[in-house]
Amino acid sequence: MANDNLLIGQGFDAHRFAEPGSGRPLWLAGLHWPVPEDADAVQVARYEGIEGDSDGDVAAHALIDAVLSAAGLGDIGSLFGVGAGAHGAGMHGCEMLRETVAFVRDHGYESSSASVAIIGNRPKIGTRRAEAEAALSEAMGCRVSVTATTTDHMGFTGRGEGIAAIATALVRPV
Amino acid sequence: MANDNLLIGQGFDAHRFAEPGSGRPLWLAGLHWPVPEDADAVQVARYEGIEGDSDGDVAAHALIDAVLSAAGLGDIGSLFGVGAGAHGAGMHGCEMLRETVAFVRDHGYESSSASVAIIGNRPKIGTRRAEAEAALSEAMGCRVSVTATTTDHMGFTGRGEGIAAIATALVRPV
Amino acid sequence: MANDNLLIGQGFDAHRFAEPGSGRPLWLAGLHWPVPEDADAVQVARYEGIEGDSDGDVAAHALIDAVLSAAGLGDIGSLFGVGAGAHGAGMHGCEMLRETVAFVRDHGYESSSASVAIIGNRPKIGTRRAEAEAALSEAMGCRVSVTATTTDHMGFTGRGEGIAAIATALVRPV
Repeated sequence: MANDNLLIGQGFDAHRFAEPGSGRPLWLAGLHWPVPEDADAVQVARYEGIEGDSDGDVAAHALIDAVLSAAGLGDIGSLFGVGAGAHGAGMHGCEMLRETVAFVRDHGYESSSASVAIIGNRPKIGTRRAEAEAALSEAMGCRVSVTATTTDHMGFTGRGEGIAAIATALVRPV
Repeated sequence: MANDNLLIGQGFDAHRFAEPGSGRPLWLAGLHWPVPEDADAVQVARYEGIEGDSDGDVAAHALIDAVLSAAGLGDIGSLFGVGAGAHGAGMHGCEMLRETVAFVRDHGYESSSASVAIIGNRPKIGTRRAEAEAALSEAMGCRVSVTATTTDHMGFTGRGEGIAAIATALVRPV
Repeated sequence: MANDNLLIGQGFDAHRFAEPGSGRPLWLAGLHWPVPEDADAVQVARYEGIEGDSDGDVAAHALIDAVLSAAGLGDIGSLFGVGAGAHGAGMHGCEMLRETVAFVRDHGYESSSASVAIIGNRPKIGTRRAEAEAALSEAMGCRVSVTATTTDHMGFTGRGEGIAAIATALVRPV
């Protein structure tokens, strides 16, 4: 059957928001979310970045795990390492996605489609969904969709401690 | 390849249970879960509804996000709005699913299959699984499966504060 | 279309780690994780098992739910029961997966591919990923991939109270 060669992958990631005043830039879903020029202190705090060895982009990281697992090629930890000296340290989500897709292609697979659900209070993904989907799709070389939701003030995402993402992807032999 | 046109989507949703005594009806997985006629106070509390602009049906909402993202058509917030005055306010899960599927079809896609995992202490989905799957499948026009699990008293779902659902869907061009 | 017959499933499971000193063996992702021979008390605590009627293998359980829901055949609770006297009580994850796959095949479906994302602090899956994937793939009769991540000390998985897993699977008619 033609769909004998379609493989599925699941990914998940979660990271903590940086402490208020850290000045860490916010990157998510392949995009930089700059502090608005006219922001007051409360608004500035809503653009505090996400912790992580790389830029903390949980959406990109969950997609990377989804693609790697679909291709049977490990996960983000095995490809990019963990810790300050890791290969992935300081990299942006789309850079990591591009490298992932090249690695997967070197092993004979290509992404067919992918999707990521972002769970958190901020930033408001819906305001820049098309831009985020364009950035992630360009990096992955296939259609990538982004949804976003909150958890009604429940759990670590609802309390604003951090942000999580669940992703899934289909790959096939090149 | 024939599977070039198969697209995958991921959805997630979580909502808080209404306060005891709210009298809010419980809707989940496309079904109304009425308080049993002979219920005592403890049992009545187990049928307290789920908060939300609509009926709070996290299973239906996660499926909507899965289908919309598979089709690359946004998410439940972009289609139904957020808040008391939103288009989706007061709607039931199956109504929203039907409108979603019609919207997706207007854009050239149809659902192929879908599945949702419900995470929470109550209601006991297994007692009405066939009924729930029939309702959701009828609304989506494709096979929809429902699983359910708890989190062993851990986290916001385990403490009974709320309920969550993770869904995935496949769509294809009509 | 050839992919008309490809069906998708979603699964989730979470269990609590046993209390320190329980002596319960740790089973996860189809593998036994024995306490290292030279382990001190701190290391021993990192090999405390997972609670559950069976061996508590959340990765196997999430995969079982994913496969059963893909095939439209219920979930782990309906197939193996719940509680100390349940059919699944005392069974290991791979045994349960094998029985699930046989049950699914008896109903005319076979697994095409599957993937599970494990969320927790321990054990370190990456150190035995190939072994875990081999065990789960053998049990399921298809390619199964395993990814793993933590939640940066957030939530019940981050605090080390328990462990969770999200799985997805594709099945098709035999």
